[in-house]
Amino acid sequence: MGLNVAIVGATGAVGAEFLKVLRGSSLPVDSLHLLATSRSAGRTLPFGDEVLEVQEVSPEAVKKADLVFIAANAEASLELCPQVAEAGRVAIDDSSAFRMDPQVPLVVPEINPEDLDGHHGIVSTPNCTTVPLVMALHPLVKVIPVKRVVVDTYQAVSGAGGAAIAELTEQATRVLGSQPIQPRVFAHQIAANVIPAVDAFLENGYSKEEWKMAEESKKILHLPDLDFSATCVRVPVYRGHSVAAHVEFSRPVSVAEARQLLAGMPGVQVVDDPAADRYPMPVDAAGMDEVLVGRIRRDMSHPNGLVFWATADNLRKGAALNSVQIAEEMQRRGLLKNGR
Amino acid sequence: MGLNVAIVGATGAVGAEFLKVLRGSSLPVDSLHLLATSRSAGRTLPFGDEVLEVQEVSPEAVKKADLVFIAANAEASLELCPQVAEAGRVAIDDSSAFRMDPQVPLVVPEINPEDLDGHHGIVSTPNCTTVPLVMALHPLVKVIPVKRVVVDTYQAVSGAGGAAIAELTEQATRVLGSQPIQPRVFAHQIAANVIPAVDAFLENGYSKEEWKMAEESKKILHLPDLDFSATCVRVPVYRGHSVAAHVEFSRPVSVAEARQLLAGMPGVQVVDDPAADRYPMPVDAAGMDEVLVGRIRRDMSHPNGLVFWATADNLRKGAALNSVQIAEEMQRRGLLKNGR
Repeated sequence: MGLNVAIVGATGAVGAEFLKVLRGSSLPVDSLHLLATSRSAGRTLPFGDEVLEVQEVSPEAVKKADLVFIAANAEASLELCPQVAEAGRVAIDDSSAFRMDPQVPLVVPEINPEDLDGHHGIVSTPNCTTVPLVMALHPLVKVIPVKRVVVDTYQAVSGAGGAAIAELTEQATRVLGSQPIQPRVFAHQIAANVIPAVDAFLENGYSKEEWKMAEESKKILHLPDLDFSATCVRVPVYRGHSVAAHVEFSRPVSVAEARQLLAGMPGVQVVDDPAADRYPMPVDAAGMDEVLVGRIRRDMSHPNGLVFWATADNLRKGAALNSVQIAEEMQRRGLLKNGR
Repeated sequence: MGLNVAIVGATGAVGAEFLKVLRGSSLPVDSLHLLATSRSAGRTLPFGDEVLEVQEVSPEAVKKADLVFIAANAEASLELCPQVAEAGRVAIDDSSAFRMDPQVPLVVPEINPEDLDGHHGIVSTPNCTTVPLVMALHPLVKVIPVKRVVVDTYQAVSGAGGAAIAELTEQATRVLGSQPIQPRVFAHQIAANVIPAVDAFLENGYSKEEWKMAEESKKILHLPDLDFSATCVRVPVYRGHSVAAHVEFSRPVSVAEARQLLAGMPGVQVVDDPAADRYPMPVDAAGMDEVLVGRIRRDMSHPNGLVFWATADNLRKGAALNSVQIAEEMQRRGLLKNGR
């Protein structure tokens, strides 16, 4: 007997990726329920040869599923996840609501699948900009003790959802026509601009996105004492988050060693021949499952430093793909059950 | 008696800014000669109430001027600068050709104007991405000993010239129309993408742009032993280079102290109220003389660390404006002479 699966937020940017990723997944899906707000209820979406109708999300609709993927917002997750868990089912949540909850595993299956064993019905998938970083860090820090990570991001608009994608398109058209721009989703014009602000700001001057990236990385990598600092920046790219990372280890790391460790990491593809114009870029990472890593070099400014650049599709490995991979791993571990 | 001034590369992206900046300059300009390649000769450009005809650049044309601004390419500079210097006149060069020559001052007038006194007829203006960084670093490192700078850049296409501006516009149109893209100026699509590669690559994995940024910063700041590492990235922005900087000092630096030092720096404007959506951005810096600095905060990952973000107009303070300011400073110091 297979699983009854629901996707909450099925009509969003991440929801569309869930449908694509589930089609190619090994998960035994008996039934698939597409859920969204009342505004989207009644819409139909193709899933393979089937056409599925979107239902309005409700506690009852969610409880029909053994496994619920949630890709909505933190408020929706805060309401729905405990209901799913209390009913003895599993919620895999893409929001920030539960990521730092010690009772909730925060998992990248290639890195810390064992954390799934202690789940209590809610599992979180990391922020979309944390994923490319930890995927590149893991094979290195697993072997070589790490002290400090400094990272700056180049984040695509789709990380802010479908309305943000539409806003970039509309603004890009207006920039080409020299027309005035009225931002709605972002605080400022994003077309032909970069905005060094993702999410709200904390007292210490960091944005919540920067704080999340630090805390999530420490939790996933099991490195609570890692020194970590980020600057998170939105760029006018549709799809594909990039990170420039500067890592200090406890000893010198050669480029050859780093490249070998990265090449052995499942889900990572080394793209690193800059003299031949080969390095990770959003246009190449978009639609891919792998995290692309390149520009690997010794840090000129630190004897134990390594610098690299990584890009991943924020809607796939940064969100939907990682969530489905979590479910597949839970299935392999016998942690998912048909509730009927 | 005033100065006879020539601009080599007058029809380029930086050339157009020279005309604007010179109009508002205190330099006593008797005559202005606009020079460019034969392809652009005969074109006319407005300069205030006058209309000036572009002449083909030649050794003879250059020698008519007491002061020559060169905004072409390194090859042109390598040929022309020594000719100007040998004739006892002054070349202010925007290319990388002479920046690291120990005989050539590399100057940001707000930082190291005294270096002009030792000139031998050639003065270099820094790379357009070095300028925002050193303008923000100088007031801090002048007071507080600095150990290490890690920086990642977000560089506008205009840094690669007028053809690059046209390429972004053309590609942005094609992206909106879902048409295929054939890059010419850049190695890859730049619209809706970021490219972690500016200039050619060195054996050590750094790009020349990254190396230039390090070496130029050390020379301008008079800090030959500064530990420095950069990742330079092209972003789909027309105008305005941004930098995310992570600086390690010899002692802790409070945000209040950093902000006070930055506020006292001529040519710097602190724009730093992120909770009110205020931080430096290319759309705001474009057309401005000032370097905008914000996102100033303690580095969570280092006890003596400070993080900030800076943006400047790469064609103005990053190129034409800084060159004209160098000339103004040389004039004040009695280093410019009418040669007739």
